Amino acid sequence: MDRARLEELLNSVKSGSVTPEEAADGLIKSSTPGYEDIGFAKVDHHRSARQGFCEVIYCPGKPVVQIAAIAKKLLTTSDSLLATRGDKKIFTALKKVSSKAVFHKASGAITIEKKKKTRKGNLLVVTAGTTDIPVAEEAAVTADIMGTGVKTIYDVGVAGIHRLFDQRDHLLNADCIIVAAGMDGALASVVGGMVSVPVVAVPTSVGYGASFGGIAALLSMLNSCATGIAVTNIDNGFGAGSIAHRIVSQKYKTD
Amino acid sequence: MDRARLEELLNSVKSGSVTPEEAADGLIKSSTPGYEDIGFAKVDHHRSARQGFCEVIYCPGKPVVQIAAIAKKLLTTSDSLLATRGDKKIFTALKKVSSKAVFHKASGAITIEKKKKTRKGNLLVVTAGTTDIPVAEEAAVTADIMGTGVKTIYDVGVAGIHRLFDQRDHLLNADCIIVAAGMDGALASVVGGMVSVPVVAVPTSVGYGASFGGIAALLSMLNSCATGIAVTNIDNGFGAGSIAHRIVSQKYKTD
Amino acid sequence: MDRARLEELLNSVKSGSVTPEEAADGLIKSSTPGYEDIGFAKVDHHRSARQGFCEVIYCPGKPVVQIAAIAKKLLTTSDSLLATRGDKKIFTALKKVSSKAVFHKASGAITIEKKKKTRKGNLLVVTAGTTDIPVAEEAAVTADIMGTGVKTIYDVGVAGIHRLFDQRDHLLNADCIIVAAGMDGALASVVGGMVSVPVVAVPTSVGYGASFGGIAALLSMLNSCATGIAVTNIDNGFGAGSIAHRIVSQKYKTD
Amino acid sequence: MDRARLEELLNSVKSGSVTPEEAADGLIKSSTPGYEDIGFAKVDHHRSARQGFCEVIYCPGKPVVQIAAIAKKLLTTSDSLLATRGDKKIFTALKKVSSKAVFHKASGAITIEKKKKTRKGNLLVVTAGTTDIPVAEEAAVTADIMGTGVKTIYDVGVAGIHRLFDQRDHLLNADCIIVAAGMDGALASVVGGMVSVPVVAVPTSVGYGASFGGIAALLSMLNSCATGIAVTNIDNGFGAGSIAHRIVSQKYKTD
Amino acid sequence: MDRARLEELLNSVKSGSVTPEEAADGLIKSSTPGYEDIGFAKVDHHRSARQGFCEVIYCPGKPVVQIAAIAKKLLTTSDSLLATRGDKKIFTALKKVSSKAVFHKASGAITIEKKKKTRKGNLLVVTAGTTDIPVAEEAAVTADIMGTGVKTIYDVGVAGIHRLFDQRDHLLNADCIIVAAGMDGALASVVGGMVSVPVVAVPTSVGYGASFGGIAALLSMLNSCATGIAVTNIDNGFGAGSIAHRIVSQKYKTD
Amino acid sequence: MDRARLEELLNSVKSGSVTPEEAADGLIKSSTPGYEDIGFAKVDHHRSARQGFCEVIYCPGKPVVQIAAIAKKLLTTSDSLLATRGDKKIFTALKKVSSKAVFHKASGAITIEKKKKTRKGNLLVVTAGTTDIPVAEEAAVTADIMGTGVKTIYDVGVAGIHRLFDQRDHLLNADCIIVAAGMDGALASVVGGMVSVPVVAVPTSVGYGASFGGIAALLSMLNSCATGIAVTNIDNGFGAGSIAHRIVSQKYKTD
Amino acid sequence: MDRARLEELLNSVKSGSVTPEEAADGLIKSSTPGYEDIGFAKVDHHRSARQGFCEVIYCPGKPVVQIAAIAKKLLTTSDSLLATRGDKKIFTALKKVSSKAVFHKASGAITIEKKKKTRKGNLLVVTAGTTDIPVAEEAAVTADIMGTGVKTIYDVGVAGIHRLFDQRDHLLNADCIIVAAGMDGALASVVGGMVSVPVVAVPTSVGYGASFGGIAALLSMLNSCATGIAVTNIDNGFGAGSIAHRIVSQKYKTD
Amino acid sequence: MDRARLEELLNSVKSGSVTPEEAADGLIKSSTPGYEDIGFAKVDHHRSARQGFCEVIYCPGKPVVQIAAIAKKLLTTSDSLLATRGDKKIFTALKKVSSKAVFHKASGAITIEKKKKTRKGNLLVVTAGTTDIPVAEEAAVTADIMGTGVKTIYDVGVAGIHRLFDQRDHLLNADCIIVAAGMDGALASVVGGMVSVPVVAVPTSVGYGASFGGIAALLSMLNSCATGIAVTNIDNGFGAGSIAHRIVSQKYKTD
Repeated sequence: MDRARLEELLNSVKSGSVTPEEAADGLIKSSTPGYEDIGFAKVDHHRSARQGFCEVIYCPGKPVVQIAAIAKKLLTTSDSLLATRGDKKIFTALKKVSSKAVFHKASGAITIEKKKKTRKGNLLVVTAGTTDIPVAEEAAVTADIMGTGVKTIYDVGVAGIHRLFDQRDHLLNADCIIVAAGMDGALASVVGGMVSVPVVAVPTSVGYGASFGGIAALLSMLNSCATGIAVTNIDNGFGAGSIAHRIVSQKYKTD
Repeated sequence: MDRARLEELLNSVKSGSVTPEEAADGLIKSSTPGYEDIGFAKVDHHRSARQGFCEVIYCPGKPVVQIAAIAKKLLTTSDSLLATRGDKKIFTALKKVSSKAVFHKASGAITIEKKKKTRKGNLLVVTAGTTDIPVAEEAAVTADIMGTGVKTIYDVGVAGIHRLFDQRDHLLNADCIIVAAGMDGALASVVGGMVSVPVVAVPTSVGYGASFGGIAALLSMLNSCATGIAVTNIDNGFGAGSIAHRIVSQKYKTD
Repeated sequence: MDRARLEELLNSVKSGSVTPEEAADGLIKSSTPGYEDIGFAKVDHHRSARQGFCEVIYCPGKPVVQIAAIAKKLLTTSDSLLATRGDKKIFTALKKVSSKAVFHKASGAITIEKKKKTRKGNLLVVTAGTTDIPVAEEAAVTADIMGTGVKTIYDVGVAGIHRLFDQRDHLLNADCIIVAAGMDGALASVVGGMVSVPVVAVPTSVGYGASFGGIAALLSMLNSCATGIAVTNIDNGFGAGSIAHRIVSQKYKTD
Repeated sequence: MDRARLEELLNSVKSGSVTPEEAADGLIKSSTPGYEDIGFAKVDHHRSARQGFCEVIYCPGKPVVQIAAIAKKLLTTSDSLLATRGDKKIFTALKKVSSKAVFHKASGAITIEKKKKTRKGNLLVVTAGTTDIPVAEEAAVTADIMGTGVKTIYDVGVAGIHRLFDQRDHLLNADCIIVAAGMDGALASVVGGMVSVPVVAVPTSVGYGASFGGIAALLSMLNSCATGIAVTNIDNGFGAGSIAHRIVSQKYKTD
Repeated sequence: MDRARLEELLNSVKSGSVTPEEAADGLIKSSTPGYEDIGFAKVDHHRSARQGFCEVIYCPGKPVVQIAAIAKKLLTTSDSLLATRGDKKIFTALKKVSSKAVFHKASGAITIEKKKKTRKGNLLVVTAGTTDIPVAEEAAVTADIMGTGVKTIYDVGVAGIHRLFDQRDHLLNADCIIVAAGMDGALASVVGGMVSVPVVAVPTSVGYGASFGGIAALLSMLNSCATGIAVTNIDNGFGAGSIAHRIVSQKYKTD
Repeated sequence: MDRARLEELLNSVKSGSVTPEEAADGLIKSSTPGYEDIGFAKVDHHRSARQGFCEVIYCPGKPVVQIAAIAKKLLTTSDSLLATRGDKKIFTALKKVSSKAVFHKASGAITIEKKKKTRKGNLLVVTAGTTDIPVAEEAAVTADIMGTGVKTIYDVGVAGIHRLFDQRDHLLNADCIIVAAGMDGALASVVGGMVSVPVVAVPTSVGYGASFGGIAALLSMLNSCATGIAVTNIDNGFGAGSIAHRIVSQKYKTD
Repeated sequence: MDRARLEELLNSVKSGSVTPEEAADGLIKSSTPGYEDIGFAKVDHHRSARQGFCEVIYCPGKPVVQIAAIAKKLLTTSDSLLATRGDKKIFTALKKVSSKAVFHKASGAITIEKKKKTRKGNLLVVTAGTTDIPVAEEAAVTADIMGTGVKTIYDVGVAGIHRLFDQRDHLLNADCIIVAAGMDGALASVVGGMVSVPVVAVPTSVGYGASFGGIAALLSMLNSCATGIAVTNIDNGFGAGSIAHRIVSQKYKTD
Repeated sequence: MDRARLEELLNSVKSGSVTPEEAADGLIKSSTPGYEDIGFAKVDHHRSARQGFCEVIYCPGKPVVQIAAIAKKLLTTSDSLLATRGDKKIFTALKKVSSKAVFHKASGAITIEKKKKTRKGNLLVVTAGTTDIPVAEEAAVTADIMGTGVKTIYDVGVAGIHRLFDQRDHLLNADCIIVAAGMDGALASVVGGMVSVPVVAVPTSVGYGASFGGIAALLSMLNSCATGIAVTNIDNGFGAGSIAHRIVSQKYKTD
């Protein structure tokens, strides 16, 4: 509450049009939580206003009934919903919460979109190999449900770099590019050197031996010799998708 | 060279207005390197066209004469120049290359801007402590010389979180936020949870003991519980500044 | 046995009121083990006197019959008992040892309290997310069975920091606060900066990718920019609960 | 400001004894920053009220003039001051800020206490070896300046465990014990098993080879087989001292 | 397309024997992808020409139907095929693609060789123990299907070094030697010191405790005190086999 | 073959009592392998002569039939046999090889002793907790089958250090002590400081969180502040038992 | 000594043309060390015969006089000599040993070639950046002095990948390629995917932050998605050069 | 004090031949510290009785005056003294404490032996290279001053394994062998496989790149495929020497 609105309220108190009790209520409420306490969780209703998309449900480790309960609460104030790393059982439960629930098999993401929003912008998601696809799809589903237009190109790793160069037009037309790669993570650097838009690199745990569950790709990406690259956690397609959405939506904002 | 331009050239060959030799020259040249080989380095003149800013000189480990030589070459095709992690000696040498050279003491960055460009957008750079300032300033100088408007707010770490909340307006008005923090890197998560714009987190090597030269902050940032955050390498202010510039400039592009 | 008591005994020997054999018995006993050797284990009966609570049974890797045998022995000299990381099968066995056995499902802890002690003090246990609850409950059950009053607040992580600030009163009224958090572990620093009581931070293995089973949170907490924080092992709710109990019980000691 | 005080203020507005402007001033001020922005830093004046001791100056990486400036600002609202990891040069500068400045050579800590406070409680600081002394003294100086009574016992490591057992009385009489140890860090576990008060373990970087700058001791302490131990960062005597002060002062609080 | 062939084409355009459209087609085609997009993958038909062997299928994480589909595509342009880390189910599927499919049980490799090529050269594959055999056989099968003659000697680790010295003749006659060893990886250094041919060391994940899944052997091999050794990833028999094939085939090339 | 025996042989050649062919046979044989090649393995018959005990079979990863085949071969030249990390199935197979096979359940070790040897010396094996017992028993079984007298004391960790001190007599009477401990590994240092005989420390993977599968204990033991301690690999009871046997048997050698 | 030569000798003994003493001398000598003991070192004269090049002197940590002494000894049996990681002072000392000594400034290598050998083959050494040059030159000097023809191409990293593609002819004509790269090490994968000859990747410690002194590049190279790559130790130009020499010389051997 | 001696004393009290005060003195003294508190250190006079050699002074981090003071105290109850990692300045100070002080330049060890003891047994110390000599000499000096006979053989690493085999007689005659090796640490395994006596392996920090200051050698040695090997900390020659002394002296004890 800024000073102008505050003085206005206090003048109403002075004039008697607002009682001190009402004013106290208002002042206290203006800093209310904006979340709902449902016992095992505090559902954050403000997040949508604050960040442009409601709280996202990370499924692993949560009982199915809790997931369904949180989803139900969130849908009272939000038109869309994203649950990541789900499975068939969770999907069945969410299908009961909303018939619009969709299961994205490769990534395990579940989305609910009560009313289809327009997608804006061109986010490109590329992978080095075919086994990076689940992570890439988590990123794609995330950005899509948040309202960004997404295109995917898979299996263009640097071992056969001509496959990548054939996609040059798509690379140059994107507003932002997500690169999902495991093993040496080298694709991020090569893409980073070819374009002028922001590149979000997401290392995947694909590989064996000294790939150490994605550390090799993570370090490679953090040390990219190309500029304009930032990195998310290993296998964190959701993280990559959400920052990419933030990036792309900046461009299409109509302040 | 696209098909249209190619057929046009070939028709000129057919018609005789262009000789086969001339056409061969043209076709070969259309894939020329776009860089200049100066012995110890291959100066990349195409980078500006390809990525919006010319090659940046990373000073450590390069002899001063080589740095000056590369700078001179780059300035033949570029109006601005950035050299990172420089020192007084390198600055003196670059001052001779161009009287417009400026030394940014906190970060060691050296910039040359032959003709002042307009800055666009609002990039906010915040730090947790005062010892994170050198990294933050490298980021700020980088984004600035690339053409982005930058504001900095220092020393708003979570140990006294009211200092951060006082800056809420600045946080909410930014197009993109860079968070530079060492130790626990917690500031990135707190900021990430407050805003809806992209957050670029740059861990700093500030700290001791088990901070392991910035690894603690790096891991903390990669694992942020807030969304919309991507991370650059430890102390890599340049990397943070350049992706932030790419992000902000997307919004102000006039295609 | 201090010098005064020693000379007193020796004077009794001299005077004949105590035989040398009896005195020898007494001197040897005063340094007796205070534990019982039951073959596969040496049950520590002195621990209660020495440390305020009897030996705690860490269940993993121990056969159920051994756990039951140790429990039976401990209950001969102690009124309360704690077994951590148990399961239904172990609970059934301990239920036979004492009908007062209680199974704490979220954490797997099993407690037996033959005669309900009064709880003293205000220990607050907070978690960043809902998946940190098992660790938090192990801490809460531990401190409770040891005699400390415990309150829990879950799901107040920094991604929606207003949820935490709403709990400010509880934070400021506590004698000690345990913060259980995975991922970036940032909640510990934020809480640490808000209060003046000791904060015990327990990193959880919640997270994925480069959280490395809790290392990210561990390092973040060890490097907290706030003061007044000490850390226990990853997922070690028991450790956090027992030091918190020691801290709180200091205040309510009546020397 | 709680509801009672808020309604009181609003009633004063209604009655006219307070103007709306004055009330607005009061309401805004009640949430004022409580810190002073001196350009390169935001000096936190509220910390003392919030946490019982003013902001502590960590010297490394800060120019001497900045340290002196921060110290001067802090002393306007605080009677005591602590600067850690200082040196002779910084001491000379602070001596000019206050003639009461004291330099603690072993740890590099500098304290200023304008008016000597009473020390309360019994904090015991023990070390395994003589090379752990600097860290131990940082802890001792920290707790002392914050108002806790401190006793130190050095060089009682487990390689000659009889030296430790001779100190049993001191161990049993303490309100809290800090154990500073490098190498194997084993002293923390042995002490933890002997007492019933909280033990704060601070690993030191003393050792060589596979001690990895204190990681061996850190891991050993985090994995202590004894209970009632929490750990601070490697060489972080300040951190150990400040949580120990929080622990001890709990006991002597007179609510 | 080199200048000579280019001018020839352009002269044909000039002379009219080739139309500009045909020439444009040719010029565009000369840079065609050389891969086939089958939706989930981009099958690289050029790899054989470029690197002497077609794309190899790494089975883990790929659905059986995809593996079979890729295999079928590859066999349209290649006479041989290698799939690594397969199993009985994948073998059954590939057996349907080609009756020539062979399953190599120890390593899980599956090979198809439509027309038996001559093997050239002498590659020797040695192991330290019997549990290193699966990795060694992956290397042997890889080099064999690529066209290199392979001999294997197993269980000659340095704990009984006379077993190795008995094989001196085989060691001295080889064109290249692959050493597969886990645990201390010491065999690589000993072999490296005995011969003058290139040694390819492949660490295996054999071992326990602080072998860390092959890291001990990997580091040992990277730090070999003998010269002439290069290393592949942990358990990467395929990688070792393919570079060894490249090495040996160099010698038998008839330019 | 030393010079004396060599000249003797050559003189026999000169005198004609040995033909050159026979002498050549002898000379070649005197450097024969001393192992038997059974296809998948090279069974080392010389090891017993060279090292005092025949090759030991490490079971994991080896097919049961191979284990049985190796055992059969070894028993042709050795009276005792040790197979480590076995199970019931392997035991059944070895029981068929020799009815004297014994299965040691805690450690999974299987021993065969065709003719009972005398045990010599006093090796003491102590553990910190009850979950360290499997590793301790592997050590005990190993040293025992090799011919050393072994005594075990379990559950004397430093959390209740009086339990250890009660065993002082056993500690002081031993020829060598093996300490098996997980978690903080502190027992090794305490024991090392109490005795003058060699201490072999074997870290166990017992613990959780930041014990990292035994690394905490391993580092603690490597950095022991007590002298006279050497360390074997994590959980490597066999390694500890075999070096302890070598140590003890030195004392009882009758050269 | 093979059987034929052995029987011949023994027949001479029988016939009396060789005395048993002489034969014993010969038999013993045939297994003589082939090295010279100069107190602090055992100079290996056999290495040249065994491995094609004499022992190489690694300078760091060796006193200059020892280096000169070893060099002098080696030159009595070898025409060429290589000392790595030397400096001006060592060069001056070796210049006195042989006037043919040459100092290679970028890498610190010192070579002596008493009689210029012909170089055979085409080894190509490429670097990603200019700061990788010292490592690359160590590799180049090593292979050159061993007798391999070397060409170098510097500064063709993937951030401006057109610079690499311009070198395609050189890449395709090489017998073996060494790739020296720090940071993300991505160049190795891209080169590996373009050629059919063996690629030796040498990670350099160039980079900062999470490059961890070359670990990022090392892991990236070990996990290369391209085949035909093997890796040497970080900054180990000598190792890369020597295996590359072994590879190339295989091709030019005339058995 | 055992029961027999205790009852005897108490009977003397009863009979009056010993007063209670005298008896109390005796009983208290029988558990006296056996160390001397000199302010900054607690000098352990009992250690010699308890462990066969007095406390050893580890010099780094200790002021010279403290070292001299400790040395003086130790020499009041011990005939020999060892200070490790010293330098010329410390030597000069100790020379004043005793004219018998000897400085061992390679390792920095300083020994004082007031009266020359006989050396017993055959300890062999071998190194892989010449740069491992300082660590080896620390081990040799340590064992020697403690009373063990020592022989050293340097520079017999596995890159030229014939140099090692020439020393077979020395290896087979030793009572115990210390192997000091950096880089791949492979020498430990090879030696371990050749002998039947205990092998103490000490990894050295010799090497570069991924040797990580000795970790590669440490891991290699911990994972040795040969038996009978135990390991000390990196560069810990003192630790290796002291356990080797304990091992060898066992054999020559005359109980």
